[in-house]
Amino acid sequence: MAIGEFDLIKCYFERSASSAGVELGIGDDCALLDVPAGKHLAVSMDTLVAGVHFPADASSRLIAERALRVNLSDLAAMGAEPLWFTLGLTLPEPNPDWLENFSVGLFAAADEFNCVLVGGDTTRGPLSMTLQVHGAVDSKNALRRSGARIGDLVCVTGCLGDGAAALAVIQDKLWPGEDAREYLLDRFYRPRPQLVEGQLLLGVASAALDISDGLIADLGHICECSNVGAIVDIERLPLSSAMRANVSVMQANTWALAGGDDYQLCFTLPPAKQLALQTLIDSGQLQATIVGEIVSGSGVICRSEGVEVNLSATGYNHF
Amino acid sequence: MAIGEFDLIKCYFERSASSAGVELGIGDDCALLDVPAGKHLAVSMDTLVAGVHFPADASSRLIAERALRVNLSDLAAMGAEPLWFTLGLTLPEPNPDWLENFSVGLFAAADEFNCVLVGGDTTRGPLSMTLQVHGAVDSKNALRRSGARIGDLVCVTGCLGDGAAALAVIQDKLWPGEDAREYLLDRFYRPRPQLVEGQLLLGVASAALDISDGLIADLGHICECSNVGAIVDIERLPLSSAMRANVSVMQANTWALAGGDDYQLCFTLPPAKQLALQTLIDSGQLQATIVGEIVSGSGVICRSEGVEVNLSATGYNHF
Repeated sequence: MAIGEFDLIKCYFERSASSAGVELGIGDDCALLDVPAGKHLAVSMDTLVAGVHFPADASSRLIAERALRVNLSDLAAMGAEPLWFTLGLTLPEPNPDWLENFSVGLFAAADEFNCVLVGGDTTRGPLSMTLQVHGAVDSKNALRRSGARIGDLVCVTGCLGDGAAALAVIQDKLWPGEDAREYLLDRFYRPRPQLVEGQLLLGVASAALDISDGLIADLGHICECSNVGAIVDIERLPLSSAMRANVSVMQANTWALAGGDDYQLCFTLPPAKQLALQTLIDSGQLQATIVGEIVSGSGVICRSEGVEVNLSATGYNHF
Repeated sequence: MAIGEFDLIKCYFERSASSAGVELGIGDDCALLDVPAGKHLAVSMDTLVAGVHFPADASSRLIAERALRVNLSDLAAMGAEPLWFTLGLTLPEPNPDWLENFSVGLFAAADEFNCVLVGGDTTRGPLSMTLQVHGAVDSKNALRRSGARIGDLVCVTGCLGDGAAALAVIQDKLWPGEDAREYLLDRFYRPRPQLVEGQLLLGVASAALDISDGLIADLGHICECSNVGAIVDIERLPLSSAMRANVSVMQANTWALAGGDDYQLCFTLPPAKQLALQTLIDSGQLQATIVGEIVSGSGVICRSEGVEVNLSATGYNHF
């Protein structure tokens, strides 16, 4: 089946989306967009390569859905609200079934998080994709990595380690029961970008990022950008029962600290904001756990039973 | 040499660029950007794959320089002014020499066209790159593909066919003298995005795009978006002496009509604006040639010596 680039775009990706702020969408040399007045434009780009970030034979629906969700996680980490995204898609061949499923997954995530496809590029080559998400965030409050101060508390949203546990399931190294398996695979393929949570933390958190490479590695970035150190109490790490029931404590903690693909937020909290956080938690708006504190010095120290432990594990390194 | 993703970004791509509109650049979850008041944000994404868009063993300096220039050509086609760009770079391995040269080429083009690198992603995989350029354009005047009207003149900037001729040189199918060879290779590796020209055409041209797939194919997009047809007079096509001196008239015209990679602008001109265009040309601000006219109907008709000719050649199709 010979399908041209332009037909392909029209067939699978062009939807008549007359969305707020989209003056001109797919189909011209550029998309023309209007950022809401008084807001910063927040942008983040992610590249995903077959065989590196996902198995080449994985479901294209899940690949697409995961790709957009993971990219949206970067907006969440700034406290930004999603607006638009672009997609650069490279395919060995334009297989109609693959594309149909890919577009279903892509638009499912796009619709769920109110993020509109406004442009991109399609080309032939080894399977990979680059997405860029665009969001809006209040000029003053955006959650940066550089705002942590000594004495702040270290917090995380949700549970940690599920991403690494799911990868073990996918790699046939972990065999939990059906419910746990389903929960973990859903966490991996359909991670929930903490967008609402990020926006709730505007004016509350002093620094934030999303945990893609493991808590130690990512909290380390906050420490580096803020010129501080951090202590994490291993016993306080939030672990899902689905993971916890199927692995040892040691394995669960290692995945929570150094596994990747969790896409929860790690944020720091000035002591004066602890009540505000507790109110958000008590009202059911935010699931968050205090796991440590910011200290002077540099780097992340892990503590178990009150004593420092030396873990050689580090975050996932793309090279 | 084991070099981590973060070191790699810092080493080759992080420059302390405190540029207008960049509230936060590389190094956080998102870049934070401010679009000039009263302007649309114009964005365009291009993916370039080794073995498809450039030879895998081509100079990384030239690959980078060409990639950004080609992407900027999309901003030119809207009449937009460049602001920022992002880069998703996928590499088989982080070779320091390759990266050093790549960054030299990238920043040479970025500096020449006042476009600041604000973020992106680096990952391991088959060599490819996705760039997204961001520009600003006046809300009312942006040059779209849909504005051509019956009776408008069809114009192009610069010369056509040099991109295809250069590709023939690179593929060792054409052997011009040293000067012509140098001129053509420079046109291929360092195409000049018609940014100044595009901005000059705001309020003058009724429609525009950049010619990446050949005049017939690209003018065809204007026709389709504007619901009109077009006639091109082959004898009026602007050809460079470097190309013309080394190939037959037939070859030169074919490349001018159906070759790719020219990155000149094709635009349509209401008759009432012909004087304005002539003034721009006479003052030396714009090099442009009238090559045809917009008519009723659909599609692009080519005319030679006043008579329609049927050319089977079509634009480059990525699939």
